[in-house]
Amino acid sequence: METVALDDAAKQIVIIDQTKLPNERRMLRLCSLEEFYTAIYLLQVRGAPAIGVFAAFAAYLDACSVSADSFEDFFKKWSEDMDHLNSSRPTAVNLSWALSRMRKVVEDHANEPIPKILNALKDEALLIRRQDEESCRAIGENALTLLKPGYGLLTHCNASQLATSRYGTATAAMYLGHERGYDFHIYCDETRPLLQGARLTAFELAEAGLDVTLQCDNMVASLMASGKIDAALVGCDRVAANGDTANKIGTSVVATVAKHYGIPFYVCGPMSTIDTSIATGADIPIEQRDGEEVTTMWYSSRMAPSGIKVYNPAFDVTDHSLITAIITDRGIYYPPFSF
Amino acid sequence: METVALDDAAKQIVIIDQTKLPNERRMLRLCSLEEFYTAIYLLQVRGAPAIGVFAAFAAYLDACSVSADSFEDFFKKWSEDMDHLNSSRPTAVNLSWALSRMRKVVEDHANEPIPKILNALKDEALLIRRQDEESCRAIGENALTLLKPGYGLLTHCNASQLATSRYGTATAAMYLGHERGYDFHIYCDETRPLLQGARLTAFELAEAGLDVTLQCDNMVASLMASGKIDAALVGCDRVAANGDTANKIGTSVVATVAKHYGIPFYVCGPMSTIDTSIATGADIPIEQRDGEEVTTMWYSSRMAPSGIKVYNPAFDVTDHSLITAIITDRGIYYPPFSF
Repeated sequence: METVALDDAAKQIVIIDQTKLPNERRMLRLCSLEEFYTAIYLLQVRGAPAIGVFAAFAAYLDACSVSADSFEDFFKKWSEDMDHLNSSRPTAVNLSWALSRMRKVVEDHANEPIPKILNALKDEALLIRRQDEESCRAIGENALTLLKPGYGLLTHCNASQLATSRYGTATAAMYLGHERGYDFHIYCDETRPLLQGARLTAFELAEAGLDVTLQCDNMVASLMASGKIDAALVGCDRVAANGDTANKIGTSVVATVAKHYGIPFYVCGPMSTIDTSIATGADIPIEQRDGEEVTTMWYSSRMAPSGIKVYNPAFDVTDHSLITAIITDRGIYYPPFSF
Repeated sequence: METVALDDAAKQIVIIDQTKLPNERRMLRLCSLEEFYTAIYLLQVRGAPAIGVFAAFAAYLDACSVSADSFEDFFKKWSEDMDHLNSSRPTAVNLSWALSRMRKVVEDHANEPIPKILNALKDEALLIRRQDEESCRAIGENALTLLKPGYGLLTHCNASQLATSRYGTATAAMYLGHERGYDFHIYCDETRPLLQGARLTAFELAEAGLDVTLQCDNMVASLMASGKIDAALVGCDRVAANGDTANKIGTSVVATVAKHYGIPFYVCGPMSTIDTSIATGADIPIEQRDGEEVTTMWYSSRMAPSGIKVYNPAFDVTDHSLITAIITDRGIYYPPFSF
């Protein structure tokens, strides 16, 4: 199961619809800008690195579809499309990072024949994909140096293979450890409101044969107090220059509770997730999503009174003071963070 | 809407089925020991004080139904019934506390005519109900001395009127403040897995005209970091002699995060919830519930992989070091706790 695949002959991106898991394995074949935008917005594809790969493929396929008389015309139309795509989710840096890489390719080939530009875009998109897999593996190798066989590992949301090209970020060490007989015990936060931990992480790790237990997000203190957890590993959507980390809502709760119990809290992500242009987490834009996700989604009937106000930020910012280490593909960073 | 009512003429307890709220207001009329047991076990009636009142009514009605030739015979049969009822939920002290009070009434009337004993049991049950209402009001008056108009108040699970005879414990000050124009902003944790915060607390407070916002449990750090929360108020199922507090799973997460952000964390409950026979929270039995509550309940389809292991404790223990004050009907206790 490839998370994001390019079918170049059909000019389509092929993804598994992550909103339907674990009950249904529904493949989507996407070919238009609006389909690409919608897939990101609806979280059919999600996870910062996977969004980056997806956006790169989308940028390539959209370029293939642009009809233009000149390079200027091509670049103008394509750039407008990319600005639109870039607005599909505001928090994950990989989206704009991947699109910037693709844009640079076009700029580097300014005024060259369009077919040549398209070839260069395709090569760059495939390179982004390959580099993502390599960086996830490197993150896993680095993280594994901090873990011991038999460890209980807690993770939040989904920073697994389904969020990347392969291995995942937070789960890379779990997969590599599993291959090497480390006998980890994985505890997955279900991750309200959209339950990515229950639906995706628990699903994927259990399918791969790891020992997985599911719990509600509010059980983290009970679990950590019980001694079952030796380390927490989470992904990241954007890391500021000081180490403040935006990740799925609830991540900073895990970090705060881990700190209270003296349990290491590790943020895992590729260097591309670190945005040194942003000084602190206070400057990271946080997406607010529809309250219906909390009050009705996944439910056969409403489980909250109608008309109730809802607070529903998609992410929170974990203060750098709560982070034991940031584990990247280039190495492990410890406080005080400097990238 | 009375949370627990006695219909003495029909020899029934009348409750609103709390598992059906907020979508359906279904009244239940219960008359047999098994119905009483099931109502507690299935959480059709819930909340430590409400369970105490319910158990007292149940003890009275069960006594009415016992057919016996002698006091010894009556006491033996009734005691067996009470032991069974007492096993319906292990954590809430009010269940065994109310049944102990009812048992003492019978012992005080040993060998007197059964009708006289039944009258005494009925009087005691109604007294427990009246005292619960009075103690909730006193808790509210005491809590209100710690709060200022305009405060943002976070609560977890349901320690409102639906959990007591009236006012609630954690919500008593919210109701009294609302009557006095305090303009509180209430934030309700939805409280997974059974969503008592979304279904019951948000429902009840919004119906009463208070300003209510709902959020997922894992948004507590985001909320507290944002400055919207001035204090957290929660109920309690059992408080140990050192102040360690068992309450709905997730309570200790709120407490840990509140401590991190320097926000007062108040435990609210009647003195009957304080169990000085238990030294610390480590000795409080914690009920583990069916994993299906996490993986399928409330869902139209499964939202977790089938066969997945689930960690599902109903309660956690908040360490006394995380509690700013314990607010009771007899006054406010500050650390070091001594009752």
